[in-house]
Amino acid sequence: MLQIGMLIYPSMFDIDLIGPQTFLSRLGDAEVFHVWKDRAPVVSDLGLAYQARHDFASCPENLDILFVPGGLKGTIPAMRDPAVIAFLADRGARAKYVTSVCTGSLLLGAAGLLDGYRVTSYWMVRDLLPLFGAELVKERVVIDRNRITGGGATAGLDFGLTLASVLRGEDHAKTLQLLVEYDPQPPFDAGAPERAPSSVAAGIRQRRADELQAAREAATAAARALGKV
Amino acid sequence: MLQIGMLIYPSMFDIDLIGPQTFLSRLGDAEVFHVWKDRAPVVSDLGLAYQARHDFASCPENLDILFVPGGLKGTIPAMRDPAVIAFLADRGARAKYVTSVCTGSLLLGAAGLLDGYRVTSYWMVRDLLPLFGAELVKERVVIDRNRITGGGATAGLDFGLTLASVLRGEDHAKTLQLLVEYDPQPPFDAGAPERAPSSVAAGIRQRRADELQAAREAATAAARALGKV
Repeated sequence: MLQIGMLIYPSMFDIDLIGPQTFLSRLGDAEVFHVWKDRAPVVSDLGLAYQARHDFASCPENLDILFVPGGLKGTIPAMRDPAVIAFLADRGARAKYVTSVCTGSLLLGAAGLLDGYRVTSYWMVRDLLPLFGAELVKERVVIDRNRITGGGATAGLDFGLTLASVLRGEDHAKTLQLLVEYDPQPPFDAGAPERAPSSVAAGIRQRRADELQAAREAATAAARALGKV
Repeated sequence: MLQIGMLIYPSMFDIDLIGPQTFLSRLGDAEVFHVWKDRAPVVSDLGLAYQARHDFASCPENLDILFVPGGLKGTIPAMRDPAVIAFLADRGARAKYVTSVCTGSLLLGAAGLLDGYRVTSYWMVRDLLPLFGAELVKERVVIDRNRITGGGATAGLDFGLTLASVLRGEDHAKTLQLLVEYDPQPPFDAGAPERAPSSVAAGIRQRRADELQAAREAATAAARALGKV
């Protein structure tokens, strides 16, 4: 039975977790569980309370999949938390697949798990990945050996479907895709910074400038601890 | 401030709730809350526990948005539950927008809220909508006056973005789209029954034949109670 450990943490983006889990919980013969440093409820970006099944000590030693969701507001303090980084480095070193969506890749990078790998991340922070020795690839989902990373937030659906295909084959993945009618038709074409109105992208960058600066500082500190900068 | 009431119920599909809420919780000047008949934790399809903020009695009388997610296994008993149907009929009669994703439309229909409206639903059950006097439209998101309905499960993202645009305008919606990098790129084109391999669609229908039959019976009973059949 596959052991799939999904990190949860305060202020994580709900869609980053639920998107992938929509597919990963339907692989058959797989156990999907949430992991956090303790068993206190984890309050997400949407204000929902998630209860980890495992803490860092009880989490199985050998995971088939280690997954990390994003959500920048929560990713920043998690990057600075030695217990989180030590957990990811430990389980990531032995997991069959080391995976993330959105800013979750910053946590994998801070744990030293992306050095020398081609990876992607959320559009606003993806230029930070080279700090960790990773090579940025601007694609929706990037597979490099056993690292599978997705772009921002909603990329978790494409990520989950891709991972389902890797683990169970195309027929199973297509069955899951039809089961959840994943035939996306966004009413606008503003989901990538290259195609959104420039005022929209600039507005987001401006409103989140402080957060982006904090992310850069946390990533730089983590890279320094890894001896990368 | 907008009052957005989202029904939650046992075995609902998580993505049906989280997809729309990803957008609806970022409208600004809006209060988004979950509603269920009581305050006991509601266990979803993924096994997560959701805690309603309001029960049917405490839910605000006049909602701006009434939203119902899907998840067929849970929709069927909810269709047969007089308290659920009475709640939806009551709040739906006064809500500014009456909305659903996936099989949630069966609950709206059972509450008599779709009679004479053009609507959509999950591909496997959408042929049941005419039982409620509704006209089926095979589109991802359908707007007819103040009824806004989405297709299956993951259509909640397109639905949420569409509703954000209706409520706050295109610029706001595009900002949300970029914020969550909603630039979907499914690795396969199997998300619609017309394009999935025929063996995939047939396999799903076969494995869920009993559930589909139960849905048809529950919908027929509800239609009868409404005097429609």
